[in-house]
Amino acid sequence: MRPTTGRLLISCPDATGVVAAVTGFLAEHRGNLLEADQHTDHGTRAFSMRVEFEASELSVRRDGFLEAMASIVDRFRMRTKLEWSDTPRRVAVLCSKQTHCVSDLLWRFAEAELPGELAMVVSNHTVARSAAEHAGVPFHHLPVTPETKPEQERAMLELLEREGIHTVVLARYMQVLSPGVVDAMPGRIINIHHSFLPAFAGAKPYHQAFDRGVKLIGATSHYVTAELDEGPIIAQQTRTVSHRDGVEDLVRKGRDLERVVLADAVRLHLEDKVLLAGHKTIVFG
Amino acid sequence: MRPTTGRLLISCPDATGVVAAVTGFLAEHRGNLLEADQHTDHGTRAFSMRVEFEASELSVRRDGFLEAMASIVDRFRMRTKLEWSDTPRRVAVLCSKQTHCVSDLLWRFAEAELPGELAMVVSNHTVARSAAEHAGVPFHHLPVTPETKPEQERAMLELLEREGIHTVVLARYMQVLSPGVVDAMPGRIINIHHSFLPAFAGAKPYHQAFDRGVKLIGATSHYVTAELDEGPIIAQQTRTVSHRDGVEDLVRKGRDLERVVLADAVRLHLEDKVLLAGHKTIVFG
Amino acid sequence: MRPTTGRLLISCPDATGVVAAVTGFLAEHRGNLLEADQHTDHGTRAFSMRVEFEASELSVRRDGFLEAMASIVDRFRMRTKLEWSDTPRRVAVLCSKQTHCVSDLLWRFAEAELPGELAMVVSNHTVARSAAEHAGVPFHHLPVTPETKPEQERAMLELLEREGIHTVVLARYMQVLSPGVVDAMPGRIINIHHSFLPAFAGAKPYHQAFDRGVKLIGATSHYVTAELDEGPIIAQQTRTVSHRDGVEDLVRKGRDLERVVLADAVRLHLEDKVLLAGHKTIVFG
Amino acid sequence: MRPTTGRLLISCPDATGVVAAVTGFLAEHRGNLLEADQHTDHGTRAFSMRVEFEASELSVRRDGFLEAMASIVDRFRMRTKLEWSDTPRRVAVLCSKQTHCVSDLLWRFAEAELPGELAMVVSNHTVARSAAEHAGVPFHHLPVTPETKPEQERAMLELLEREGIHTVVLARYMQVLSPGVVDAMPGRIINIHHSFLPAFAGAKPYHQAFDRGVKLIGATSHYVTAELDEGPIIAQQTRTVSHRDGVEDLVRKGRDLERVVLADAVRLHLEDKVLLAGHKTIVFG
Repeated sequence: MRPTTGRLLISCPDATGVVAAVTGFLAEHRGNLLEADQHTDHGTRAFSMRVEFEASELSVRRDGFLEAMASIVDRFRMRTKLEWSDTPRRVAVLCSKQTHCVSDLLWRFAEAELPGELAMVVSNHTVARSAAEHAGVPFHHLPVTPETKPEQERAMLELLEREGIHTVVLARYMQVLSPGVVDAMPGRIINIHHSFLPAFAGAKPYHQAFDRGVKLIGATSHYVTAELDEGPIIAQQTRTVSHRDGVEDLVRKGRDLERVVLADAVRLHLEDKVLLAGHKTIVFG
Repeated sequence: MRPTTGRLLISCPDATGVVAAVTGFLAEHRGNLLEADQHTDHGTRAFSMRVEFEASELSVRRDGFLEAMASIVDRFRMRTKLEWSDTPRRVAVLCSKQTHCVSDLLWRFAEAELPGELAMVVSNHTVARSAAEHAGVPFHHLPVTPETKPEQERAMLELLEREGIHTVVLARYMQVLSPGVVDAMPGRIINIHHSFLPAFAGAKPYHQAFDRGVKLIGATSHYVTAELDEGPIIAQQTRTVSHRDGVEDLVRKGRDLERVVLADAVRLHLEDKVLLAGHKTIVFG
Repeated sequence: MRPTTGRLLISCPDATGVVAAVTGFLAEHRGNLLEADQHTDHGTRAFSMRVEFEASELSVRRDGFLEAMASIVDRFRMRTKLEWSDTPRRVAVLCSKQTHCVSDLLWRFAEAELPGELAMVVSNHTVARSAAEHAGVPFHHLPVTPETKPEQERAMLELLEREGIHTVVLARYMQVLSPGVVDAMPGRIINIHHSFLPAFAGAKPYHQAFDRGVKLIGATSHYVTAELDEGPIIAQQTRTVSHRDGVEDLVRKGRDLERVVLADAVRLHLEDKVLLAGHKTIVFG
Repeated sequence: MRPTTGRLLISCPDATGVVAAVTGFLAEHRGNLLEADQHTDHGTRAFSMRVEFEASELSVRRDGFLEAMASIVDRFRMRTKLEWSDTPRRVAVLCSKQTHCVSDLLWRFAEAELPGELAMVVSNHTVARSAAEHAGVPFHHLPVTPETKPEQERAMLELLEREGIHTVVLARYMQVLSPGVVDAMPGRIINIHHSFLPAFAGAKPYHQAFDRGVKLIGATSHYVTAELDEGPIIAQQTRTVSHRDGVEDLVRKGRDLERVVLADAVRLHLEDKVLLAGHKTIVFG
């Protein structure tokens, strides 16, 4: 049984004494340090830090934690984010007709391989209904046409809000989300793109890869931003292919990549190991 | 000691009986088959084949081989290429200031890890002179300025021709070759680009990769064509990087990729294992 | 729609003219060649070949194919194996309490990503029942104790025979099969071992890997033979780990390897791309 | 230009406040923290830490640094190791007849890709003499026979001591060092073994790999201890092979692995990123 932990993410300008101040605060309040990672960008001198600490012996109340730390936060002009491992985030998975990613996520959440709670599957098709319901996860069918898209996106946002969804995972969801949806959940929508971005952005990346004659295919998971396929990258992998592989072989081989890369990104995100730094990520893996 | 072999490369429209005709011809003329690879493109129905056979017992003279095969060539409308393993190709390596690739190639040719003969190193700088001469390889200094480029390229082409150079390897040669040079050696100039093409084509790919925040870097070796970084890809590899890697770390990690990917491509090319098929390659690895 | 194909696997002593004879036979009987792979072992001079050809235009009846080829078979002293792609093999998956491999195989067979038919799941536990039945695959519970093992193995063999099972996949089945079972299905039982064999054979390989402090973990799929973990290897993969990974992290990371490596091996086997050559395999991938 | 840094490595029993104490000490003495990595072993509760800090502004003299830190060292019962980046370590490379690793190391040190100074090449053969001397590195020929081994090892130890050698790299040195040599340089002799240890320990690992029919080969760099091939592993990599690869192909493919894995290990070691923890390593990469 893993202990309950707090996870504190910090961003601030680099300065002498930041790490000492934060770890000193934790030691003083009996938050036994389990992991500490930090990074300073050589160019921007932006400092980032993640500390994970045992929460059971804390001498400060959780809801007073950041207040108790206020003088440090002020001194170093920190932006902070604090999460607790026993407050699992509720996750919604959006998918279309292809089920390899959603099936994989259903299995991983069911087995508690991923932290958090898979609270719903939403789809513009009904292919995934059976798998979701077998796993005991509510399924919502929100079909989308160009005409109904605004209305359906409003319905989806209401649903996400009503159900307290923290993170949305696009598991090969073949619809581009409108800026309104993206803006409503900044840094909390994760997509899987079936190429090694920035190569083969846009539609049909396996066809593009086949046409170019590359010797590797890839998959990229990233946060969704207003610009399609341009969001901060969380995880990427590649695998070898050859002239013997037709487009359908690339698709098949790619599915294995997509599943693993998306699951990695979701796990890192839900363990609060990903910090956004401009249009890039810092992954304290 | 590996036996002397012939390598026959064939391209033709797909048809029943091609493999039987070719292998039958070889059996009839006592060319014991060592390897046979073939591939049919599902879309274009273009058929490609590579056979390697022992040359020592052949009942037909080498210089009469293709003539003896003429009726088969005609029947299937074949384009053919025939090479013999005991006629090693002479190779020229072009480089600029960075020596990791040229040093690596010098070592590999010296140890006979690569087939063929490294006949010269040509550079617009003198950094590689010492390494080349220590390896006993003639070094030619052809400095290039915008003004002298046409003249120096003519000098280089003359040099390549005079020395009977079969293949040119651009080992981080930081000059774009003019169409005249490229056209003079179609399918016989190999470049290494320090990214996973088509991502980060053009200049400073490691800087581009750093700016985009990718989690993998790559290297691509390809035949040089008139369009920069668009030539048929021979080999590619990637390796993981993280936010901890600055541009200089990407450069350092990339060097290891570049060396291996370029050497792989050169070896495959000199073993006649690469067939050009439009703007793609078929690599019978 | 892929065409119906025949797959002919051949082993014989190396001799001039084998490939010509086989491909000539096919051309003569209008079996249009789609793929041909061959290999000669340098040490033993054993020749292996796999040809795949279109079956629709054959001028010889399928059940007379090998007979028509008898003179060639005799001349070269061939062992042959002939399979047809439209006669899918029936597969049984055996598992215990861990479900990552069986769930993955259920998904892949359901999506027709793997050829063949997943005809049953057999387990000494009931954990996988629900997933199997949801996928419409019959589930058989055959609990095993040291006392009941002989009896249950007899029951299993009867079940496999009665249901016409061609191939058995041990998807983390935590029981050692008795020689009687292994001998009944030579070259048709595939296991996944959760290490890079021959490292960490035997029990608890992730614990062994953790204790040794390796920087990579692996998975190996192989045919089951009388000697535990010594069977011919079909597929292997590794991935990086570090000191940060506890045993449970190795287990988690390893699951992703195991699934992919096992699925690869099953696919290669069911596509008749694996030839046994002594205690090794030739994989015409 | 990278700044001069101090690198402090710490091992002690886990306790609340260690990180705060160390980073507080650094902040107090104006050692601006650049990197901090720490790790607690879940089983043994052993705590390990590496901090790298700028040395230019330190308010404490370098040779008084650990003394100034004494109360912290005592309180937490720390073992410490302190190194400065401007005090490069002198390295000796030992090799035999194969030159791929030694050539590679000569190039990397010459290009300052590796920190430290390659002070000598020692060999029981003379093959590497020319490459060493071309690079301006002294070459020592110490031929070894069973009779002369004790005497030559004494000569080598004297040489290493006289020249102030900090680290010894066995770059395919085909002699087993006697316990006397190993004990003289604990944690400072790095070997490359041409397999994925613990698979294929001992002699001729590529032959062993070929005989077993593995689908991947590997290379392992490790500290040398009294037990052959059992030392703490620093770095490992694998790459794919197939039935087409004969032993000589495994040897060739393996050379690329060996070079990169050995260079990685040497770099990590010389950057003080490797901590010994029993028979394992913690690599703060």
